[in-house]
Amino acid sequence: MNADNAATLHPLDLATALSGEGGQYSGQTSAGYANMVGPFGGVIAATLQRAVMQHPERLGEPVALTVNFAAPIADGDFNVVARPARTSRSTQHWTMELSQGGQVSATATAITALRRETWDATDLPFPPAPAMDGLPSLKGLPGLPKWVGRYDLRLVRGGIPPLPQHDKPQVDSSETLLWVRDEPPRPLDFVALASICDVFFPRSFIRRQRMAMAGTVSMTVYFHADAAALAAHGERELLAHARGLRFHGGYFDQAAEIWSPEGVLLATSNQVVYFKE
Amino acid sequence: MNADNAATLHPLDLATALSGEGGQYSGQTSAGYANMVGPFGGVIAATLQRAVMQHPERLGEPVALTVNFAAPIADGDFNVVARPARTSRSTQHWTMELSQGGQVSATATAITALRRETWDATDLPFPPAPAMDGLPSLKGLPGLPKWVGRYDLRLVRGGIPPLPQHDKPQVDSSETLLWVRDEPPRPLDFVALASICDVFFPRSFIRRQRMAMAGTVSMTVYFHADAAALAAHGERELLAHARGLRFHGGYFDQAAEIWSPEGVLLATSNQVVYFKE
Repeated sequence: MNADNAATLHPLDLATALSGEGGQYSGQTSAGYANMVGPFGGVIAATLQRAVMQHPERLGEPVALTVNFAAPIADGDFNVVARPARTSRSTQHWTMELSQGGQVSATATAITALRRETWDATDLPFPPAPAMDGLPSLKGLPGLPKWVGRYDLRLVRGGIPPLPQHDKPQVDSSETLLWVRDEPPRPLDFVALASICDVFFPRSFIRRQRMAMAGTVSMTVYFHADAAALAAHGERELLAHARGLRFHGGYFDQAAEIWSPEGVLLATSNQVVYFKE
Repeated sequence: MNADNAATLHPLDLATALSGEGGQYSGQTSAGYANMVGPFGGVIAATLQRAVMQHPERLGEPVALTVNFAAPIADGDFNVVARPARTSRSTQHWTMELSQGGQVSATATAITALRRETWDATDLPFPPAPAMDGLPSLKGLPGLPKWVGRYDLRLVRGGIPPLPQHDKPQVDSSETLLWVRDEPPRPLDFVALASICDVFFPRSFIRRQRMAMAGTVSMTVYFHADAAALAAHGERELLAHARGLRFHGGYFDQAAEIWSPEGVLLATSNQVVYFKE
């Protein structure tokens, strides 16, 4: 990428940029999306989704993405390999790997497909929430990882004091409801949506109202929208909802959904997270 | 495997048996677990989990499994490759592939880990259900795929008439609650549990109260129990709960949980399913 591109690209596009071709790519971590240790997992998931998106043999649009975080990713360069493992008339199965220094740091699989119009229904209820504009943003708050600054996050509920939230702090709950938008605003696409699926603080922090070591080990996203629907959504905010299911033996799982403000379920996402204490 | 083994093995162990070593295995489909087309997806997931379980380099116990069904699996022989992609002090990341005739039919990833005792909580409520013994079994009902006969399934609610169920048929619901046990009974382990996570009829059948084409394209399982807990569970029944989230553009997703009768959440599972109409 040349300097002109870097100056005009959105930070997310810079962070997920891959050079190379034919499924053999190289990229580099981006300081703006740094987490406590290494890069924000969402941006790694987004980078692996991008490896599929820009592959010349890609068929159709994303249906599913699973990313396994196998080792800490060091700041600097990495390699990504994306390979279509099997292609049928309407679906394509992908395997991906992200490596540094010849060692695998993340494995992933993805499915893309030519979608058809079918019967449509959303059985999950859309959670009611006050409008984003009236809620305080986490922007500029001290003590948060750098990636948080790459989003405009507004907590309806389920933060940790002193983070500002609309509802009063919850007791014995691992639920979070928040509005989220890229910062600066950026048109929604599959790359951005994959990253947003990981925008929640660890459920163990919320459930126990204190921070401790935690890190996602595997994350899955199911996409429920096509590129046209995401483009039509544009730069507007998304309502993001997450809860923990079970915390046991050093791991907990999280179920999450990403909604448009009109109540369209754009993606569902699950992850399993290592935690201490 | 010799004839003596085949005679004494549980059908699930026969169906998931893999010969070979060092992560290069061969297996074969089993008529008793046949689905409408090809084998029951649960038993393929179980086979890929088994490939990890019997790998000589395995570290720890299963935490996560994702299986992507890339193509129909023909009755007969298949090959499975399982490879530890990255091993750390306490976790291990796996990639697996199932192939037939040199073509990939399923891709998969798994995580195993040495678990530690930590704080424990289950935030998801345990669904109330009448005892299994008082409910009619689906055993022996005509017109069902053969794999159904390898389970003792008792519907609390969320079937399709004329399948017998305890509650009255639901309207506009994609929820199913059922008891399940291997048939014949078999001690619970990770292989059996992975298969049971796929034991639900497609949500599109339930939601629309009619059958049509549907097939799982990707399935993820998060395990919340160790081998000792599964062994202690023994051959008893499990309470399995599933619902659809969104049906859109030819795909829907399903969230599911597998509980012990005492209300211990043993596994959560998600899948995305291709459907027609």
